[in-house]
Amino acid sequence: MNISVFDHPWLSGLFGDAEMAGILSAERQMSHMLAFEAAWSRACGKAGLFDTAKAEEAARAIETATIDFADIATGMGQDGVPIPRLVKQLKAIAPADAVHKGATSQDVVDTAMVLALREASILIEGRLKTLETEFEALEKRFGDVPLMGRTRMQAATQITVRDRLLAWRLPLSDHLTAIGQKRATIEKVQIGGASGDRKALGDKAGMVVDEVAKTLGLAPTQKSWQTMRHGIADYASCLSLISGTLGKFGQDVALMTQQGLEDITLSGGGGSSAMPHKQNPVSAELLITLARFNATQVSAMHHALIHEQERSGAAWSLEWMVLPQMLMATGKALDVGCALCKSITGLGKA
Amino acid sequence: MNISVFDHPWLSGLFGDAEMAGILSAERQMSHMLAFEAAWSRACGKAGLFDTAKAEEAARAIETATIDFADIATGMGQDGVPIPRLVKQLKAIAPADAVHKGATSQDVVDTAMVLALREASILIEGRLKTLETEFEALEKRFGDVPLMGRTRMQAATQITVRDRLLAWRLPLSDHLTAIGQKRATIEKVQIGGASGDRKALGDKAGMVVDEVAKTLGLAPTQKSWQTMRHGIADYASCLSLISGTLGKFGQDVALMTQQGLEDITLSGGGGSSAMPHKQNPVSAELLITLARFNATQVSAMHHALIHEQERSGAAWSLEWMVLPQMLMATGKALDVGCALCKSITGLGKA
Amino acid sequence: MNISVFDHPWLSGLFGDAEMAGILSAERQMSHMLAFEAAWSRACGKAGLFDTAKAEEAARAIETATIDFADIATGMGQDGVPIPRLVKQLKAIAPADAVHKGATSQDVVDTAMVLALREASILIEGRLKTLETEFEALEKRFGDVPLMGRTRMQAATQITVRDRLLAWRLPLSDHLTAIGQKRATIEKVQIGGASGDRKALGDKAGMVVDEVAKTLGLAPTQKSWQTMRHGIADYASCLSLISGTLGKFGQDVALMTQQGLEDITLSGGGGSSAMPHKQNPVSAELLITLARFNATQVSAMHHALIHEQERSGAAWSLEWMVLPQMLMATGKALDVGCALCKSITGLGKA
Amino acid sequence: MNISVFDHPWLSGLFGDAEMAGILSAERQMSHMLAFEAAWSRACGKAGLFDTAKAEEAARAIETATIDFADIATGMGQDGVPIPRLVKQLKAIAPADAVHKGATSQDVVDTAMVLALREASILIEGRLKTLETEFEALEKRFGDVPLMGRTRMQAATQITVRDRLLAWRLPLSDHLTAIGQKRATIEKVQIGGASGDRKALGDKAGMVVDEVAKTLGLAPTQKSWQTMRHGIADYASCLSLISGTLGKFGQDVALMTQQGLEDITLSGGGGSSAMPHKQNPVSAELLITLARFNATQVSAMHHALIHEQERSGAAWSLEWMVLPQMLMATGKALDVGCALCKSITGLGKA
Repeated sequence: MNISVFDHPWLSGLFGDAEMAGILSAERQMSHMLAFEAAWSRACGKAGLFDTAKAEEAARAIETATIDFADIATGMGQDGVPIPRLVKQLKAIAPADAVHKGATSQDVVDTAMVLALREASILIEGRLKTLETEFEALEKRFGDVPLMGRTRMQAATQITVRDRLLAWRLPLSDHLTAIGQKRATIEKVQIGGASGDRKALGDKAGMVVDEVAKTLGLAPTQKSWQTMRHGIADYASCLSLISGTLGKFGQDVALMTQQGLEDITLSGGGGSSAMPHKQNPVSAELLITLARFNATQVSAMHHALIHEQERSGAAWSLEWMVLPQMLMATGKALDVGCALCKSITGLGKA
Repeated sequence: MNISVFDHPWLSGLFGDAEMAGILSAERQMSHMLAFEAAWSRACGKAGLFDTAKAEEAARAIETATIDFADIATGMGQDGVPIPRLVKQLKAIAPADAVHKGATSQDVVDTAMVLALREASILIEGRLKTLETEFEALEKRFGDVPLMGRTRMQAATQITVRDRLLAWRLPLSDHLTAIGQKRATIEKVQIGGASGDRKALGDKAGMVVDEVAKTLGLAPTQKSWQTMRHGIADYASCLSLISGTLGKFGQDVALMTQQGLEDITLSGGGGSSAMPHKQNPVSAELLITLARFNATQVSAMHHALIHEQERSGAAWSLEWMVLPQMLMATGKALDVGCALCKSITGLGKA
Repeated sequence: MNISVFDHPWLSGLFGDAEMAGILSAERQMSHMLAFEAAWSRACGKAGLFDTAKAEEAARAIETATIDFADIATGMGQDGVPIPRLVKQLKAIAPADAVHKGATSQDVVDTAMVLALREASILIEGRLKTLETEFEALEKRFGDVPLMGRTRMQAATQITVRDRLLAWRLPLSDHLTAIGQKRATIEKVQIGGASGDRKALGDKAGMVVDEVAKTLGLAPTQKSWQTMRHGIADYASCLSLISGTLGKFGQDVALMTQQGLEDITLSGGGGSSAMPHKQNPVSAELLITLARFNATQVSAMHHALIHEQERSGAAWSLEWMVLPQMLMATGKALDVGCALCKSITGLGKA
Repeated sequence: MNISVFDHPWLSGLFGDAEMAGILSAERQMSHMLAFEAAWSRACGKAGLFDTAKAEEAARAIETATIDFADIATGMGQDGVPIPRLVKQLKAIAPADAVHKGATSQDVVDTAMVLALREASILIEGRLKTLETEFEALEKRFGDVPLMGRTRMQAATQITVRDRLLAWRLPLSDHLTAIGQKRATIEKVQIGGASGDRKALGDKAGMVVDEVAKTLGLAPTQKSWQTMRHGIADYASCLSLISGTLGKFGQDVALMTQQGLEDITLSGGGGSSAMPHKQNPVSAELLITLARFNATQVSAMHHALIHEQERSGAAWSLEWMVLPQMLMATGKALDVGCALCKSITGLGKA
C-alpha cells in the first residue's frame, strides 16, 4: 500500500479519494467478477447448456461465496489472470460443470472492469455537475468583477472574472456529454470465450450473451471486444481531458495567488515547515500534477491498442497498471476542484 | 525538409502521403489564414465596424495577395506567431483600417487550423470507408477459411479468418462515427480578440462571429475557445485511436507472415540488401510504428490542455509541433492499411 | 491497496515484489525521514546552532519515535507535504527548538527519497548481476545451438543461440555501470532550507551539510538541488533502460514460444481457464508490459524537470506519483527475468 | 517541408536552427552513408574479402557519387530502408562485387546516424559551454542583487539573483559530462551483417570492423548493437534532460516577466497583433514548449528498446521519426537560451 500515492498511509491525505477507491477496491472488483460468474451460470442454465438446477445452485453459491484473495494471488504469477484460481475456488463450493464453462478469463475480468467503470462514470458525472454548480456560484458572486486578462504571461486587456471562469466551466458540460457517449460505447458485456468467437456456446451464443448482459445491466454485443480496445482507450482519453481542464483551472489559480498579482484570495492554504507566514496554493498545484499525470498515462492506454491476435497478455496487462490510476486522478481532480472553488473568498480586482 | 520523416527526401518514400501533406502545406495554411482575414474584413464592414467600401477592397486584396513567407518567418522568432508580420504585409496592399482590427493572432491561426482539420477529416473519413471496403472484400474472399486463434502468443482454438478480420474492421465504423462527432465539436470559428472576450467588437460581436463563421462554413461560438483546448486534444486522441487500430492490424499481419505460421501470404514485400530471398512485411511493421508514434504524441496534446490564463504561448506552440504529425501518421496508416489489404493473396489455412 | 497492481491483493501475485516493496514502504520512508531529522538535530547541535544537549536529546527522541501516520495524512491535504505535521509530532516528544529548525520539508523528503533510492539501487545492482549470471549459464548450456535469426519478423540467416543471448546479456553490464554513475550523482544530501539558499544556517551551512551528509552516508553539496531535478530524471531514465532491455528479452521469448517456431521450451507457463492444454508465456509478456509501463512513466519524470523557481509543488509531486512505480517495475522485471531464465529448458534447434 | 515546425516556411522562424538542420540534412546523412560504404569497400579490400584494386575503385566512385534521392525514395516504401536502392545506384558506378557485400542496411543507416550524432553532440557541447558563459556573465552582473525567492508560487524568503542563476547554470556542466559519457558509449561503428553476427565476414570480421571504425573515427565493437538500443535511448534521454533544464530557465523567466513581479527586464520581446504595447516573453515560453516536446518524445525512444529478435522494423523506424526532432529541440533550446540571456537587461530587485 505504499507504492501508489492514492493509498499511501500519508500521501493519500493529499491524493486519496475514498469514494473512488471504494469503487475500484479489490472487494468491489471481486463482487463484479462473481456477478459475472453467477449471471453466466444462470444464463447457460436458461440456454440449456448447463443443467438448470445445477446452474441455479451454482449461481447462488457464487453470489454468496467468500473468496480467498491470497489464493487468487498465488495463481496470478503463473496464469497472468486471476480467473483460473477463482474458478477453482468456485468449483469447490458449487457444481463444477455449471461454473464458468464456455467462458474465458478475459470475459470475467473485462466485464468486471466495465462494471467498475460504470460506477466510476456515475461518480464522475456527479462531480462534474457539482463542479459546474460551484463555478456558477462563483460567477454569480464575482462574475462582473474586473480582472486583468493575461496572455503569454503578460497583462493584456481588462476582462471580467466571468471571462476566465467560463473557460473553467464550459468544458465541463462537454465532458459530461462525452462521458455519456463513452459510457454507451463501453458499457457492454464481454463474452468471447477462449479465442473470442464464442464457439463453445454454439447456437446458444446470442441467448447467453443477451441474458448475461441483461442481468448485469450492460449492453449485449455481436462480437466480443476482447481485442478491440479503442472504447477503453477513448474512455481513458476522456478522463485525461477532464483532468486537463482541471489542470488549467489549477494553473490559473496558482498564477492568480502570486503576490504582486493577487487576483484571487483563498481561505486555508498549505503551511510550510520553514515559513509559517506562507499560504501555499496546494490544491491548485495538485490539479496541475494530476493533469500532467493523466496526460502521461493516456499514452500507455493508447499503446495498449496494439493488442495482437485473439489476446495479448502484454497489451492487456498494461491497461491494468494504468487505468485505475487515471480514474483516481480524475476523480480526485474533480473533488479538489470543488473544494478549491469553495475556498475562494475573492476573485478579480473590484 | 529533413527533420521529419514525412517530408524527408527518401524517408518520405516510406512515410510520405501527398494528399495529407497537401492539406497541411504551408500554402494551404496561408490560404486559410487569408480566408479568415478576408472574411473578417467583410464581416466587420457588414457590421459597420469598418467602412464598407474599404472592407470589400481589403477583402479582395487579401484574397488575391501573394504572401512573402520568408518575411513572415522573420517575425516569428520575435512574435511567436506569424500574424503581426502577415497583417503588416496585408496593410501594405489593402486599406489598413479595414484589416484585422479587433481580431488577434490566435483567431487567425486557430481558425486556419480548424479549416485544415476539416479537410483532413474528410480525407480520413474517406480512407476509413475505403479500408472498411477492403476488409469486407477480404472477408468475402477468405472469411470462412480456418485460422488458428492465438492468445498470449500461443495456439488456442480454431477460429475463422472472419473472426480476426472483424477485429480489424469493426472499430473503423466506430472511428467514423467518432470523427463525425469530433468534427461537429471542433469545426467552429475562433474569434476572441486580444484577451478572448471579443471586447473590441462591442455589441457587434455576435454579428461578426456569425458572419465570419458562415463565410468559412464553420459554426459560430458564444465564447472563444482560445484557452479551451479539449476539443482539439480529443480530436488528436481520435487520430491515435485510428492509428492504434491499424497498429493491431499491422502487428497481426507481421505475426502471420512468420515462417512456421504462414497464416497469410502477401505479394510484394520489402527486399533486403543482404538477403535477397527475404520478403519483409514492411507495411505491417510501419503500421505498428505509426501507432506507437501517435500513442506517444497524444500525450503532448493532453499536456497542452494546461493552457494558462487568456493565452499560453508555451502550451499552444506544443500543439503546432505535434498535431500535423499525428494527422500525417493517421492518414498514412489508413493508406498503408488499404495497400496492405490489397497485397493479401491468402489468409488462413484452408 | 487496490489502485496499484504492485500491492493489489491478487494482482500483486503477478506484479508484486516484496523486497522492493519493503524498500519503498511507508515505514522505511518514515525511518529515512527520521534519520534526517535526527542527523539534523545533531549536526546543528555540533555547529552550535542548537543547544548541544537539547540537540542530542532531540535526536534520540526522534530516532525512537513512533509516528502517527494517520495524523501525518491529515496535514497532507492542506500542506502538500508530510513534514509540518511530522515536525509537530516530533516537537511534542523532543525539545522543540532543537527540531528541524533551519530545514525545510523538501530537505527531509528529498533526502529520504535518496536514501530509498540507494537501497533500491543496491537491490537492482544485485539483480542485474544475478541476471547476468543466469544468461551466462544459458550461454554455457545452449550457446552453440543453432537458431534461425529473424529480422523484420522473417527468417533470415542461421545464427547461434549465443548471438541472441548476447543481445539480452550485454546491456546488463552497461546498466550496472550506468546505475553506478547515477548513484554517484544522486546520492547527495538535500539541504537548502526554505528557499534553497541555506540562509537560516548562516556561516554554519557548510558544517551542517557536511555533518548531516556524513551521518547519512551521502555526499554533501555546495548548493541544494531542490529545483535541479536532472539527476533524478536521469536515474528514472536508467530504470526504464533496464526494463526496456528486459522487455526485448520478454518479447523475444514470447515470439520463440510460438508453435511453428518453438525456438525455446519453458517449464511452467500460465494456465487458461478455457484451454487446459495451453502454457502461456506469462512471464515473457509481463516483461513487455513492464517495459512499456516504464517507457511511459519516464516522460512524466522529464516533465518534472520544469520545476519553477525555488520550489514547485506541481512538478515535485509528479515525481512522487511515478518514481516508486518505476522502481517496482524495474525491480520486478529483473526478478521475472531471472525466473524466466531458470525456466528455460531448451533454446534453439539443435 | 510543412509538417515539422523545424523546417516550415515560417514556423522555422521560431523553431528553426540552421546549424543543427545542416547536421541532420539528408545531404549530410547521405554523405555519412557513402562514407560507410567507401570505408567498407576499402576495409574488405584490405582484408582480402574484395579484390583490392576493385575495392579502391569502388571506394573512390562511392566517395564522389551523386546520389539520386528520388530513386532512393521509390525503394523505401517497399524495402523500409534506403540501402537496397542506394547499393543499386552504387553498383551502377562501381565494381559491383566490391560494394556493400557482407554488410546490411542497418550497418549503413545506424553508422550514419552515429556520425550525425557525433556532429550534433559537438554542436551541443559547444552551446552548453556558451550558455554556461552567458549565465556566468549574468551572475557577474546581477549575482548579488536581491530577489524574492518563490516557492509553490508564493513569495518565500529573500534570496539573491545568484541563487536562482545557479539552478539554471549548474546542471549544464552535468549535461556536458553526461554528453561526453554518452558519446563514448554510442560513437561506435555498427557492423553486424544480415542477422547481426557478422557471419559473412568469416574470420576477417574483426579486421573489417577495426578498419571501418578507424576510417570513420568511431570505436569498434565486439558485437553489433543492432538490437541493443539502450545507448541511443540513453542519448535521447540526455537530450531531454538538457531541454528540461532550459525549460525551467524559460518557465522562471516567463514568471519573472509578469507585471506585478518584474524580477527581470528583457530587451526585445514579441509583439501582438492586437495589443501593440505588449512585450511577450516568446523565447521563455518557447523553452517550455521545447522541454515538454522532448519530455514527450523520450517515451517513444524508450519504447524502441523493445527491438525484437535480430531486427525490428517496427521499433527501429520509430527512432527515425523521433530522434532528429529531439536533436533539433535541444539544439534550439540551447540557442534560444543563449539569446534569452543576452536579452536580459535587468535581474532581481536592487
